[in-house]
Amino acid sequence: MSIATEIHRRREVAVVGIGATPFGEHWDKGLRELTWDASVAAVEDARIRGKDLELIIVGNMAGGMFVGQEHVAALVADFLGLKPTPAVRVEAACASGAVALRQGYLAVASGLYDLVAVGGVEKMTDVQAGWATAVLTGAMDFEWEAYFGTTFPGIYALIARRYMHEYGLSRELLAEVAVKNHFHGSHNPLAHFQNCITVEDVLSSALVADPLRLYDCCPISDGAACVVLAPAEKARQYTDTPIIIEAATQASDTLSLFERRDICTLDATVEAAQRAYKQANVSPKNVDVLEVHDCFTIAEILALEDLGFCKKGEGGRIYNEKQAYVGGSLPVNTDGGLKAAGHAVGATGIKQVIELVKQLRGEVEGARQVKGAEIGLAHNVGGSGATAVVTILRRR
Amino acid sequence: MSIATEIHRRREVAVVGIGATPFGEHWDKGLRELTWDASVAAVEDARIRGKDLELIIVGNMAGGMFVGQEHVAALVADFLGLKPTPAVRVEAACASGAVALRQGYLAVASGLYDLVAVGGVEKMTDVQAGWATAVLTGAMDFEWEAYFGTTFPGIYALIARRYMHEYGLSRELLAEVAVKNHFHGSHNPLAHFQNCITVEDVLSSALVADPLRLYDCCPISDGAACVVLAPAEKARQYTDTPIIIEAATQASDTLSLFERRDICTLDATVEAAQRAYKQANVSPKNVDVLEVHDCFTIAEILALEDLGFCKKGEGGRIYNEKQAYVGGSLPVNTDGGLKAAGHAVGATGIKQVIELVKQLRGEVEGARQVKGAEIGLAHNVGGSGATAVVTILRRR
Repeated sequence: MSIATEIHRRREVAVVGIGATPFGEHWDKGLRELTWDASVAAVEDARIRGKDLELIIVGNMAGGMFVGQEHVAALVADFLGLKPTPAVRVEAACASGAVALRQGYLAVASGLYDLVAVGGVEKMTDVQAGWATAVLTGAMDFEWEAYFGTTFPGIYALIARRYMHEYGLSRELLAEVAVKNHFHGSHNPLAHFQNCITVEDVLSSALVADPLRLYDCCPISDGAACVVLAPAEKARQYTDTPIIIEAATQASDTLSLFERRDICTLDATVEAAQRAYKQANVSPKNVDVLEVHDCFTIAEILALEDLGFCKKGEGGRIYNEKQAYVGGSLPVNTDGGLKAAGHAVGATGIKQVIELVKQLRGEVEGARQVKGAEIGLAHNVGGSGATAVVTILRRR
Repeated sequence: MSIATEIHRRREVAVVGIGATPFGEHWDKGLRELTWDASVAAVEDARIRGKDLELIIVGNMAGGMFVGQEHVAALVADFLGLKPTPAVRVEAACASGAVALRQGYLAVASGLYDLVAVGGVEKMTDVQAGWATAVLTGAMDFEWEAYFGTTFPGIYALIARRYMHEYGLSRELLAEVAVKNHFHGSHNPLAHFQNCITVEDVLSSALVADPLRLYDCCPISDGAACVVLAPAEKARQYTDTPIIIEAATQASDTLSLFERRDICTLDATVEAAQRAYKQANVSPKNVDVLEVHDCFTIAEILALEDLGFCKKGEGGRIYNEKQAYVGGSLPVNTDGGLKAAGHAVGATGIKQVIELVKQLRGEVEGARQVKGAEIGLAHNVGGSGATAVVTILRRR
């Protein structure tokens, strides 16, 4: 079907420019200023002018609910002075960034467009307490889940509790995910949190939804990220270190958790990963560095399993053996992940890809660099797994 | 640049299935039920099964603000039982439908996908009085326009007042736009309003924003619409009357009205139209039937001018001479337009294309059929013109 066709007909696509703001609380910046900072950096990195762009894709989950602004892509094109360039907003909850990237990838892969900017942005912190959590429930099934009071910490707490019951994961080992991500974040100048924490810090933090505590949960962040895409055959016009998008695949699952065959597996991740490995002709063993969607600590463990890096139920071992640190056999979320680098939902999928591009270019700040990394994989999830996107990048 | 490339490399795309709900107040149906009705009809019309679809694109402006539901495309894929098919939501305010259609068109034109469903949906009426108007201000610049109290009727009233001053358009002639659209709507069983009105009805209706009165304004509606796209070379597998998408072009302009060089011209419409005529190798003279974005009466007059059907300032004459009726020389909004057929914002751009497909297939209900129509043009606008999309269709 489409995948087979895609392998044969697509044109290779490269990331030729990257730019991102710090993730965090930007009290002095709104959607437009955040996007400006990230996109100007990406356009400069690609050594082009904004007017060279032929298409703009913007990932944004909930501009309407957070700041009253829909029509976000037009806002971006306008504020960047890029009219009449067409601008399209894409939304897939917390996977909005990666789905936007995939739309940009398809536009270039198709041969219809050469230079495409894909940005992601979210302004989340300028709201009253509680409102952000309410907005985010828009990513679950409003009528069948959110209406009855469920929130995302609640959903992932159900998953975590079931997982601990099924597979004997200890509360302490779960905390190691957050400890590792904060350690990585402490080396990332763009991270929302740059402080190290201990297992004891996690276990003594406020209970949010049993068994998840405050330090199991990613923050809400303001932030923007942008990449410039070009055909691989022309990429060296724009950069000395083009990074090829070997695959950008997406799959869907039920919106509601209660409809899943197994709440400890994200079938959309499994499906998107299988499609990606096939398209890129790569297996998990070939992947040198990973960015996965750790909205909650348990989510990172599920991701490693569903992406095929270990068997179901064995994800915890990776944290027992500290393999997931930079320097270990499977470096995961080297920028701190959603937990420490932050989660500006529409921007997260782009930010993940930017971290991988920096890793594959070999230009990460100091201690975070994974030596000799050639292949990176990004994994971005919408809701509790109704959308999953897997992107595989390769240095050439 | 991209347009030239597009003409050479793109694969021809056809609409092979259509389906829509009535637009109106659907008290017994939410987003999922409306989408179900429209998409099942479209899939049946294309004589395929849902599982044959390879990609789903959904246009929706403000599911979050209207009904608390973001992640709308995943909801649609889920409720239609189509997981793991990838599903992407596209938003461009009131042009969400046409921008979604264009994304689907690019996916098929590229050669990467064969069968793509593009839907549009909006559930607008299940809110408290005033809230819908507030939500819709999200399509203008929130920080620079909406924050200060401007609403869309206000924006278009400024345009109408300026236009009447510049070009001497009479209040009565402006009302003829609504009279004509209600007349067309009276023959459309899916229209929100199926009653005829007179110029006196318009002039005596409540003042909304001087000079615009209630009957100058389109309603807010619930509704969904869906089309199935396929490569033209395979289209006869699915339908006996494939309708070719000769062009689907988009352009951007400033989000704020005050930044425009001329508030009586929508530059994005002008630009998108020029691109579309070039791509389709068609001029306004070749167009047999038109669906334009008449969110307010004045918008239909601007559209005819900006699309090149008459000179700036001369749009009113078309209504003086009743050319825009079915049977006239330039039938416009034969389904009743946004004014009478209704405006379910995310669905409107798809609904317009469905009306044209029915016209070109020759299957419109009775008196609304434009005899022998071969080429149709749809024009969908986001906000006050920050996004405009022009789609040209041809019977083969």
